[in-house]
This record gives sequence, C-alpha cells and structure tokens, in this order.
Amino acid sequence: MKNMVYIQSGGPTSVINSSLYGAYKEASLHPEEIDHIYGSINGVEGLIEDKLFDLKAEDPHQVELLKQTPGAALGTTRRKLPKDIDDPIYMEIVKNLKKHNIGYVFVNGGNDSMDTCNKLSILANKLNLDIRVMGVPKTIDNDLACTDHTLGFSSAAKAVINQIYAVSKDALCYKVGKTHIIEVMGRNAGWLTAAADLVPEDGHPDLIYLPEMKFDIEEFVKEVEKIHQEKGYGIVVVSEGLQFERQGKNEVDSFGHAQLSGTGLALSEILEQRLGLKSRVVELSILQRANPFLLSLTDRDEAIDVGRFAVKAALEGTTGKMVIIKRLSSTPYVTKLELANLDLVANAEQKVPESMMLNHHRMADSFREYLRPLIQGNVELSYKDGIVELTTFKKEIVK
Amino acid sequence: MKNMVYIQSGGPTSVINSSLYGAYKEASLHPEEIDHIYGSINGVEGLIEDKLFDLKAEDPHQVELLKQTPGAALGTTRRKLPKDIDDPIYMEIVKNLKKHNIGYVFVNGGNDSMDTCNKLSILANKLNLDIRVMGVPKTIDNDLACTDHTLGFSSAAKAVINQIYAVSKDALCYKVGKTHIIEVMGRNAGWLTAAADLVPEDGHPDLIYLPEMKFDIEEFVKEVEKIHQEKGYGIVVVSEGLQFERQGKNEVDSFGHAQLSGTGLALSEILEQRLGLKSRVVELSILQRANPFLLSLTDRDEAIDVGRFAVKAALEGTTGKMVIIKRLSSTPYVTKLELANLDLVANAEQKVPESMMLNHHRMADSFREYLRPLIQGNVELSYKDGIVELTTFKKEIVK
Repeated sequence: MKNMVYIQSGGPTSVINSSLYGAYKEASLHPEEIDHIYGSINGVEGLIEDKLFDLKAEDPHQVELLKQTPGAALGTTRRKLPKDIDDPIYMEIVKNLKKHNIGYVFVNGGNDSMDTCNKLSILANKLNLDIRVMGVPKTIDNDLACTDHTLGFSSAAKAVINQIYAVSKDALCYKVGKTHIIEVMGRNAGWLTAAADLVPEDGHPDLIYLPEMKFDIEEFVKEVEKIHQEKGYGIVVVSEGLQFERQGKNEVDSFGHAQLSGTGLALSEILEQRLGLKSRVVELSILQRANPFLLSLTDRDEAIDVGRFAVKAALEGTTGKMVIIKRLSSTPYVTKLELANLDLVANAEQKVPESMMLNHHRMADSFREYLRPLIQGNVELSYKDGIVELTTFKKEIVK
Repeated sequence: MKNMVYIQSGGPTSVINSSLYGAYKEASLHPEEIDHIYGSINGVEGLIEDKLFDLKAEDPHQVELLKQTPGAALGTTRRKLPKDIDDPIYMEIVKNLKKHNIGYVFVNGGNDSMDTCNKLSILANKLNLDIRVMGVPKTIDNDLACTDHTLGFSSAAKAVINQIYAVSKDALCYKVGKTHIIEVMGRNAGWLTAAADLVPEDGHPDLIYLPEMKFDIEEFVKEVEKIHQEKGYGIVVVSEGLQFERQGKNEVDSFGHAQLSGTGLALSEILEQRLGLKSRVVELSILQRANPFLLSLTDRDEAIDVGRFAVKAALEGTTGKMVIIKRLSSTPYVTKLELANLDLVANAEQKVPESMMLNHHRMADSFREYLRPLIQGNVELSYKDGIVELTTFKKEIVK
C-alpha cells in the first residue's frame, strides 16, 4: 500500500480546488491501494522542503467547500525545477517521496507545471521508483495543447461575459458617457478576451482586441473616436497582452508606473492625449479567475471528473500522462476524457486560431459555438450569514 | 385620473431598478387613480426634453427582470436643476407635466437627486399644480441623512465583502506574495470600505483605511512594511476618498495620470518608492455597484417595498417627502418605513460615526452589528444560456 501526494502549481483558477476534490474523492474509494492523501504545501516546494499535510485529517466540511473555493487551497508556487535531472534538489524530492512512501504524484497546473510534472515522471522512471506521476490541466488562459479546453477557462470566460454585461448596463445609462476600457487577462492567448463577444446585444462591446490580432494604435484611436461620435460612449474590451509602443514610458517609469499601468491605463492615456477623450479603465483583475459567484457548472463538474480520472488512470498503472478533454460534439455537448504524453503538452501553446477571428467587432460563429456549451449551468453556493463559505485547511505538517 | 412619471437620477446601484419595479407594481394596482406609468429617459432630462416612455407598453418579462438588473433601466443623469425656481427650464418641465397630465412624480436618487426632487416639489406647490412629488432614496455610499441606510448600499457592501474574500483566497496562495491594495468606492463616506471588516478571518484584510480616519502616509508605509515582514504579503483595503499628497503628481499630470491613477495606484507607487515593495492594485470598480451576482435579498426586497411605499403615500395625498427606513431592532432585524421632509435630506451627509471605528485593523462591534442584517439572503437569478438576463426597454417616446 502506498500514499499519494497532490500538488497545485502556477496561477490559481476558480475550479483548481474542484480537481483536488475529485482526486480526493476517487482516492478515498480505494483505501486498499491508497492510504494517506497528502497535500503538498505551496506546490513542489512542499515536496522539496518536506511540508506535506494529511487531507483526511481535515474537517470534511472544508473538503466539501473545495468545490466552490477559488485560489489554491494547498498553496501554490511559481517555482520551476532545474533542467538538469542530476541537480541535488531532485535528491531532496526523492528522499521525501521515499520517506512518505509515495506511490502516486498528481500535479495540477498549466504549461510550466506540466514541465514540472514531466520532470518528476522522468525522475521516477530513471531511478526506477515505483511512483506514478499524472498531470491535471488547468489555466484560465486556455492555451494548453492537446486538450479541447482547459479547466478554469470556462468559469473565467463566464465571469468575463457576465461581468462585462453588468458593467455595460451601468456604463450605458448616461446619455453621454465615458468610453469604458475593460481589460481582460491573457498575455499571449486571447481566448478570455474573445469571450466578451458572447455578451448580449444590449451590452455588447463596440470593440474587442485580442493579442492574436494585428494591433495598430492609429487604427485603434480612429475606431474609438468613430464609436464615441456615433454613440456618445463606448465599450472597448482589450487583452492585457496587446503589443504597442507605450507612450511616455521612460518618464513614467521613473514614477514606478511601468509595473503599475496596465494595457488599459496606457490606452486610456493615449486616447486622452490624441482625442482629449476621457475614458474609464475597468480591470476585471483577479475576479476573472477567483470568482465563485460565476462558476460554470460544466467547468466545475469537468474539473471534478478530470481529478477522478487522473486517480483512476494512475491506479490502472498509467504514468507520465496528462488528462485531456476531447470534444465529440457541441450540440449536444459531448466529451470524453483521454490521456496525452506530458512532453507533448509541456512546451506547446494554443492560441485562438485565425478561423475564429473576424474583426474588432465580432468573433466568428465557430468561436461562439465552441464557447457556449462551456459556460452552461450555475453552481449553488453555500453561504453563511451572507458571506460565501470558502475552504481553509489547518495544514498540520506530517512528520 | 392622472398619469405618473418615474425618474432615476445620479449614479446607479444594483437595486435602483427594484425600486422602480415596486413603484410600477403598486401603481398598477390602482388603475382608477393612475393611468399611464411613464419612465423619464435620462432622469430629469426626459422631463425637460419631453422624452417619456410608457412602461405598460414594454414586454412584461423585461419589467420582471428589473429585480436583477443593475444600472438605471430608464437612463439617468448627473444634471442639476438651477437654483432659481423662475429659470425658464422649469417652464419646460411644467409644460410637459401638463401635456402628459402628470399627477405623480417619483425621483429615485441620492443627495443631489433629492435636491432635484425638492425643487420639483416646491415648483408644484408654488404654481398650485395638482402634482404629488416623492423621493425614493438610493446610493451605495450610505451617506443620506434621516434613514438607517440607503438602498443599494447593502448589496454593494455584500459585493465588497464577498469579492475581497475571494481575492484574498487567490492572493494568499503563494508563500511570499505581493501586497494587494484593494480600492473601494466612497469619496467622503467610508461605509463601503468599512464593510471589508466583515470578511472572515482566513481572508480578513490586514489593514483598512476609511476617509473618516486620520490618514498619515508615513504611518501607512510603516504599517504595510510591518505586515509584509511578518507575513510575506498583505491585504490592504483603501477608500478611494483617502486624502494625502500624491507624489510626483505634477509630472504625472502631463501624461494624463491625474485623472487615471486612483488612490490605490498612487499608494502603490509610494510603497514602491519608499520600500521597493511591489504591490498589486485591485479596484473593485463598477462591480461594486453593478453586481447582480451578489445582491442582498434584504436590500432587493427593501428596494421594492420602498418603491411601493412611495406610491401608496402619494396616493394617500403625501407630497414633498422622501421614504426613509427606520430600524427598530438588529436581532431580529426589524424595520419600518417612514417619511422625511425632502429639505432635511437634500443637503446633509451621513458619515461613519467615530463610535464605529476602532483602528486600521478592526471596526467596532457596533459596526458589524449594524451591517450584518443588511447583507442577508441571496437573490436567485434568471439566466439564459449561461448569461444573466438583464432588462432592456424599447423606450418608444410618448407623443
């Protein structure tokens, strides 16, 4: 009999803890094969520093709340493992894996985390350890290769659509209003920004800019001016990842703005300078990826299923794979779970294809057909005294 | 038989349309006294420019959705009426009131709007018009005099508490993280900022700064540094209305930052300059006051009741009054609706009393007892295809 350890890695999502929940529930069904279920505190750091805690020792109610808790309940990390598999840090990891009799390792993360996962798998293989290593995908950016979509993206997209719709209702209630620049996450891939296209007509953005689209600042200024003249206001959605020369950057730097001003603020400054147009910048910020109030039930349930599937696959002897979602049909929405080699996932990046982009006003129908099933269904939340209940673990370190 | 006109005025809230709904429903019960129910497009501007539309001619489903729609469904305005009651603009208003046989005017708004309401009441009185004028209070700032709280504040407070809790879960999942500066609305009154104190312990802000508290920038820098050293991160909640000398303001002005950088950004710059500490600024922004996903049922139902009460009072002959909420008990929460003279409300401002403030870490128990009943209960929302349904009216202008 072996123990398992679960690692959360990279930026959190609204459903990363739901995958943990699924894995925990599945593992609990197999006490003859999996004894302790450990959480590694702060990602792979817990494994290096021997900081694991026992999930079965936690309050069961807190475990149930994982299904509605954003952030990474185990703690996460941005730490990357060294390229050289002979680096002494790996000996620390192996020492702790052996100390705790670990037979199953699960890494829940995005691109970089699948690289960590892949390295642990190579390590286990090289040293002939009896350890199965599995990847569980997540990232709100939806930029992982091999999978139809990533866990966490669907809820983030749902949050983006619904929040922009609500902001629009507020923004459009004056006869002449400010241009609203709404900044959406996604440094290289514009999936989340594109989601804004699903906002209904009576709140639909006038302009949407993805990092995959050629961005010309002159054209941007002209388009915003045109909208403002026609309507008296404007709703402009921009990806944080837009590439353009940020005016006055050097001077601004000396006041620390380079780190502070995002894309929305920089564009707002340009509009003020060129057109004398005042705009309001709304960064959807952390409430895109940490929003229990706008969870997609589809996403949440897929996250649980993928966690379960990873444990089942490991129990059947699989190692060195990541769970992927394959879409069989959009209407009705039918998927199946499969496995992909970690090295195929680890360093690839999936951007919005050209076929899904039309112009700065509309995405292609194919994009809307792709996204619509992912945002379906709401999660009924548990509240206490008007405040959502979110998991907090005691995290007593296992000796 | 007379007609009624309803005016929405000033900044919108998450429940301003619920008061309209309540007034509409009550008025509909009295067809023998109130015939048409008009909405004035963009506040008092609709009355000046003769732009009214008939709410009974709208799709009833859209009327039902008012109960979950943020923003001002009729359109709103920041326009103030002239002091001089003999100004020609009042003659335009009187002309249109007579043209449409208006016997009831409702103004739903905050301080400034109650001034508009008061002027219309004085006008009706002076010209001996058979028109009853009633005020319906709203503002997320909770700074209106005479009433226990204002409609819209409770839902905004609930949004602030729950959103900060979710952001905290995301922010605290790294071992060493950024200091998060969360900026909350409220230029003069700190009620909404103070709400952050109700965030549960496992996500409670380390520091909370209200505009009513003496703000010393040196002390602020020291407190943030201390927290960062102790914990490796920090959650700092600041009111947008904090008063301090914004460093580098002149230079920044030339790049248009004076209008752009909010309080959070300015404080973030100061922390970077003084401590070399990088912080993340999260402006809760419009999603404080336009958030159907975090409506307080208490607030929503009070908003409907107050709309109904205003119509009932007008039908009974009342004029020149605003509806106020009187709290009889907090546990259990019991209130009753009463009426206050408009001139008492119009120019007063209600700030957080000293007795409710302790220090930068905690509000007094009396504050929490005051706020807790206001955020209770959730509103079940109507969704379509994963997207919340929000009211949109055709607004065909009445000839």
